[in-house]
Amino acid sequence: MSLAKRGHDVRGIDNLSRRVHVRNIGSDSVFPILDIQERIAKFNEIHKCHIRFYKGDLLDYSFVRNIFQQTQPDSIIHLAEQPSAPFSMISQEHAIYTQHNNIEGNLNVLYAMKDYAPNSHLVKLGTMGEYGTPNIDIPEGFIELQSDGRKEILPFPKLPGSIYHLSKVHDSANVHFACRVWNLRATDIMQGVVYGTRTPEMIDDSLMTRFDFDECFGTVINRYCAQAAVDHPLTPYGQGKQKRGFIDLVDSIQCLTIAAENPASAGEYRVFNQLDEVYDVTELAEHVSAVGRKLGLNVKIKPIANPRKEKENHQYNVEHKHLHNLGFRPTRNIVESLTIMLTDLHKYRDRIAERKSVILPQIRWDDRELTEKQLIKR
Amino acid sequence: MSLAKRGHDVRGIDNLSRRVHVRNIGSDSVFPILDIQERIAKFNEIHKCHIRFYKGDLLDYSFVRNIFQQTQPDSIIHLAEQPSAPFSMISQEHAIYTQHNNIEGNLNVLYAMKDYAPNSHLVKLGTMGEYGTPNIDIPEGFIELQSDGRKEILPFPKLPGSIYHLSKVHDSANVHFACRVWNLRATDIMQGVVYGTRTPEMIDDSLMTRFDFDECFGTVINRYCAQAAVDHPLTPYGQGKQKRGFIDLVDSIQCLTIAAENPASAGEYRVFNQLDEVYDVTELAEHVSAVGRKLGLNVKIKPIANPRKEKENHQYNVEHKHLHNLGFRPTRNIVESLTIMLTDLHKYRDRIAERKSVILPQIRWDDRELTEKQLIKR
Repeated sequence: MSLAKRGHDVRGIDNLSRRVHVRNIGSDSVFPILDIQERIAKFNEIHKCHIRFYKGDLLDYSFVRNIFQQTQPDSIIHLAEQPSAPFSMISQEHAIYTQHNNIEGNLNVLYAMKDYAPNSHLVKLGTMGEYGTPNIDIPEGFIELQSDGRKEILPFPKLPGSIYHLSKVHDSANVHFACRVWNLRATDIMQGVVYGTRTPEMIDDSLMTRFDFDECFGTVINRYCAQAAVDHPLTPYGQGKQKRGFIDLVDSIQCLTIAAENPASAGEYRVFNQLDEVYDVTELAEHVSAVGRKLGLNVKIKPIANPRKEKENHQYNVEHKHLHNLGFRPTRNIVESLTIMLTDLHKYRDRIAERKSVILPQIRWDDRELTEKQLIKR
Repeated sequence: MSLAKRGHDVRGIDNLSRRVHVRNIGSDSVFPILDIQERIAKFNEIHKCHIRFYKGDLLDYSFVRNIFQQTQPDSIIHLAEQPSAPFSMISQEHAIYTQHNNIEGNLNVLYAMKDYAPNSHLVKLGTMGEYGTPNIDIPEGFIELQSDGRKEILPFPKLPGSIYHLSKVHDSANVHFACRVWNLRATDIMQGVVYGTRTPEMIDDSLMTRFDFDECFGTVINRYCAQAAVDHPLTPYGQGKQKRGFIDLVDSIQCLTIAAENPASAGEYRVFNQLDEVYDVTELAEHVSAVGRKLGLNVKIKPIANPRKEKENHQYNVEHKHLHNLGFRPTRNIVESLTIMLTDLHKYRDRIAERKSVILPQIRWDDRELTEKQLIKR
């Protein structure tokens, strides 16, 4: 919507699998989401734009190839992957589905670029989770190494924490290869957790973006906000010192726009660390709690056992200067956004209350039994 | 065969796709290869062993799961991947097939280990090509990095040179994850180019291993030897200064046996660089040429344009001490082995001459047209 409003000729491509996955695990977006064609018609009507949409699957190469041939894109903003770490850890089938869908869909995009749009620029959505949480500073994609006076700049090594995060690491290596060997252009976005319910284009509720709050597709901030909206205690996992990068939805769109409007050179593979603030999950809970109390909600914090296998207390110092150098300036902070989010969610609190059992974690990174405490809480 | 002779209870699992791929590109093994069940019956009869074989596909999880449940393996030696870089670069279909087959087959093995044989040890065949050719020394899998006085040991960054090599890099990251998060045991073998036609078990020609010499499934050393056997000039690619690690077939089996008989600990992910000698492809051609001339063959060297996109003159200093520390001692050098290889191949030179057009490269890493020189040579 934002790119169309800026005058770009925008085409959407999606297989709409997210809706299906969320429904299959017993949840739904807090805000009701229209059928895609109705939603686009509504947007085009309200904003006098001309977005076109193709329903189809990136795994279907004849579909991908035809669209590339017909549209000759300047930029491809590729957000079309299975985005949930817990979803990828449910079972063997979910693991295979995630890597299959993400790696092969992305590989088809790279092939279509090579064969039908070799000058186009790929803006590929990765995740800060590709890096994991090493005990040293995290640079923007690359590191210079030396031995015996010789130097080499190499990709910074990654320690992804789930089958999903691995799929993004594999994508990154494939995209890097396509730039090195096929001379393609790409920007690989290591994105932090995005929060927010509103962008300036959403002047009608029918244009709102979906908001998931279940253990798979709801991020930690979405789960906290949903819990706050229905008077459920916020539930950090484990020691609660896990640090993550965060960025507001509007600022995330600003970053993607900057990347698309300032393309990489032929053969260039750029990595942008796209985050604005860093909080540990307890600090985040405290922000949600403080904003919630201001809005008259009764918000408590009650840590629960960690269903994941991850470091709970760690270093997290992330370089992120490339986007700033291209003009990125954050426009919102988390307290402003949380006020909007909790207000929006409170209007729909019945839809959260109906499904609130989907918030607490049942999917575990190993095969330990659920603790009694977790069982009681459901 | 070697493990069975050492008293291990060996089961083979394969979908026999290699034979099909080689036939599909118009080639065949120099040595005729029996049907798998006949070959195993022959081996068991001659050597009084009891190898059993299951034909099936690692992509079929119910097949993999059943075998793990029934056999409760101590070790899994996983060599069952599409092993050709040029094959992976033929087309979009070949790229997808390679990453699909290799990544998902390996992920199924990891899941079956986790769920049905959590104490078993995976010996996974990777390739030295995972590292590519960085301008610095190549360590054995890991590197220590520092920032602000903090340290971390991380996987050494990789620059793979083909869609196939990428698939092995993705496997390595998946195997590492399975050790870190599921507490599995694994040894990831970064193997150099294996050469040789004979092991001590091959006391009857019906037990010989296959020998491919086509541009996809024949390695550089196999292609040279096949060329020498039919009086075709040896054809290094480009400047011919590309260095690679090599290891004799018997020594490669020695290494895999050492890895299997000295398993990694629970949660441990070990990387072994499995190579013995380093040559550039011109030095290698000179060795083949010298041995060929001693055997009365008329061997010339004629470089051709490089169909790949790769560094043609580079640093290559590879650490490989883990296997030595576990007792590995090379038993053959390349001159001894080349004498055996060229003698074996010369007996079957009619089978090479019939198909010699498959040796010269037609598959290119980019979309440049074949040069006239290359076209004439076919």
